[in-house]
Amino acid sequence: MQVLHMNKGNGDTSYAKNSTVQSKIISVGKPIMKEAVLEMLCNNVIESMGIADLGCSSGPNSLSVISEIMDTVEAANRLLGRRMVSEFRVFLNDLYSNDFNNIFMSLPAFYDRLKEEKGLECESCFILGAPGSFYGRLFPTNSLHFVHSSSSLHWLSQVPAGLESNDLKRLNKGKLYISKSSPQSVVDAYLLQFRNDFSLFIKSRSRELVAGGRMVLSFMGRSSTDPTTENSCYQWELLAQAIMSLAREGRIEEEKLDSFNAPYYAPCTEEIKDEIEKEGSFTIDRLEAFEIDWDGGAVTDIHTPHGKLSVGRRVAKAIRAVVESMLESHFRIEPDVMDDLFIRYGGIVGTHLSKSRTKYINLVMALTKKW
Amino acid sequence: MQVLHMNKGNGDTSYAKNSTVQSKIISVGKPIMKEAVLEMLCNNVIESMGIADLGCSSGPNSLSVISEIMDTVEAANRLLGRRMVSEFRVFLNDLYSNDFNNIFMSLPAFYDRLKEEKGLECESCFILGAPGSFYGRLFPTNSLHFVHSSSSLHWLSQVPAGLESNDLKRLNKGKLYISKSSPQSVVDAYLLQFRNDFSLFIKSRSRELVAGGRMVLSFMGRSSTDPTTENSCYQWELLAQAIMSLAREGRIEEEKLDSFNAPYYAPCTEEIKDEIEKEGSFTIDRLEAFEIDWDGGAVTDIHTPHGKLSVGRRVAKAIRAVVESMLESHFRIEPDVMDDLFIRYGGIVGTHLSKSRTKYINLVMALTKKW
Repeated sequence: MQVLHMNKGNGDTSYAKNSTVQSKIISVGKPIMKEAVLEMLCNNVIESMGIADLGCSSGPNSLSVISEIMDTVEAANRLLGRRMVSEFRVFLNDLYSNDFNNIFMSLPAFYDRLKEEKGLECESCFILGAPGSFYGRLFPTNSLHFVHSSSSLHWLSQVPAGLESNDLKRLNKGKLYISKSSPQSVVDAYLLQFRNDFSLFIKSRSRELVAGGRMVLSFMGRSSTDPTTENSCYQWELLAQAIMSLAREGRIEEEKLDSFNAPYYAPCTEEIKDEIEKEGSFTIDRLEAFEIDWDGGAVTDIHTPHGKLSVGRRVAKAIRAVVESMLESHFRIEPDVMDDLFIRYGGIVGTHLSKSRTKYINLVMALTKKW
Repeated sequence: MQVLHMNKGNGDTSYAKNSTVQSKIISVGKPIMKEAVLEMLCNNVIESMGIADLGCSSGPNSLSVISEIMDTVEAANRLLGRRMVSEFRVFLNDLYSNDFNNIFMSLPAFYDRLKEEKGLECESCFILGAPGSFYGRLFPTNSLHFVHSSSSLHWLSQVPAGLESNDLKRLNKGKLYISKSSPQSVVDAYLLQFRNDFSLFIKSRSRELVAGGRMVLSFMGRSSTDPTTENSCYQWELLAQAIMSLAREGRIEEEKLDSFNAPYYAPCTEEIKDEIEKEGSFTIDRLEAFEIDWDGGAVTDIHTPHGKLSVGRRVAKAIRAVVESMLESHFRIEPDVMDDLFIRYGGIVGTHLSKSRTKYINLVMALTKKW
């Protein structure tokens, strides 16, 4: 929680410049988000609408979701012929080390656009930063109407309990995440951590959302109950290969690879449903799975040498922007080794994708807080 | 508004490391702040207390005010034998370019302290960032109970209207702010800008505060109606001298000095009262003036050569941390010229203070929103 953050700033390796996959994921979930907002507006009178984007990161995606939600409210106004919402309270959440400065600097232009395009005065839209972990309370009781979170809930609150102690962490030798070779105890530790985290998330949001409030969540998952299929973990498998190849050359300590376990989990729909039903205060309106290309679906012919290279490179940059803070903190490697690692990773990914159509499975769900 | 920010980070020239004067100013106003909080708690039942610190900057001062306010509530709990406030909503405000990242990174330790020292669970205190200009709306209607602002309201929303156009700005040739040599039109332009800004501030807060809510404001002012006395402007006079000495050596363009007018105003109590009374929704409970040493009152014998040097240097660093972003944007000088400027300024300040006891006048006022 103290370590994970998307790469800051606007540079070449920044998250802001390498978040096409997450943007694709947002647009895939858009119809579900719009439907949830519209349904809620039809059934509720909202004076001051509390909206939270959890895990907003920093970059073009941070405000695009908010903009979409406000567009939908605007469309509802036109459709229903009256102003459904007179005030927006918008909360942008991410961990304490997120680059909030970057988001805040883009707010004046965002407010100008709201005024120009939607005729919204600054007295009716208040955008705030809400730093902290969403695995716990972030907002006052009954203060929110709509919660959105995209590409964030696959991050666990910590390395699975048990796997962070010195004796046990080598159980997953040579791997970064669940793999075909992982013993059952590793798989169990991951599932248990997910269950604990996700149930705490649901419980916290249940307190914060008003009755009838909606939540649209979208994050990495899997379509099979088996957590070792390629679609649910192979990006980690290949990253472990890249690290191993540097370890063989003595440029990264192999021991460090053995002791690393990513605080990540891609659940299947049953695991998610279980926790939501156990908690009991939400109904599940939708729970859908989408296949997402590792590079966000840019049009490139993978079967040419150039295509292979450029797809691999794009995937490597996208993953680097997300995991670099974690790798840096654990492996403590020099910037040039980090550069090499992701060049190698890009090559490995390109070769893999030219032979196999591995994709991410992105789960999107819409929930309603019960009355 | 797009330019002004305290120097970022934690380095030698950062605001975080050079904000002793502002810390002194906070502690001088503390009894008035505590009194206002206590009085409000005696007269109001507050389920969820909305607190805003406007112009929070970044560094040790940002959270110290919040901590003091919560201590006072805690003391009231003990005094009155019941929990007066069950939830805190804390809003930290500053301009978009403020270093919010720096504040947010210190929040986990701050929450830990709240828990240890005050037994406050994270479910009862929500700290949010509210970026934007306080010369306009920042918060929903009737959402705040207590507003604090220290060392911020002497900053105008812009260079006084009129003085920013090319023809007029040379009216204040060789000066950065109101000076003995300034023509009346310059003095008038400054006063008009202050009146417009401060009345907009009061009007905006009036909408945001609940009836009975309190506001404690503390900022640079003057004790005389004459805006050209040393206590109200001499720090700018000496900074102009330092810039002029570099201009004479061709290291800064003199034309740039002629065209610079600081977006700053130190009002007298009458000017403040006028605007508050004109707006009409606040009663003035207190309005007091305090003398503050230019270096925040560190114990140094100014009459030794070493003392003179170290006082001058401290004052120069304190002013640099505040005005550097503005000077950089206007003068576009190289870092080494900036360094030289403040070395020279330190010398000039030391010499001045060894001969004259010039102080800042800090005004502190407590206001109550009428029922």
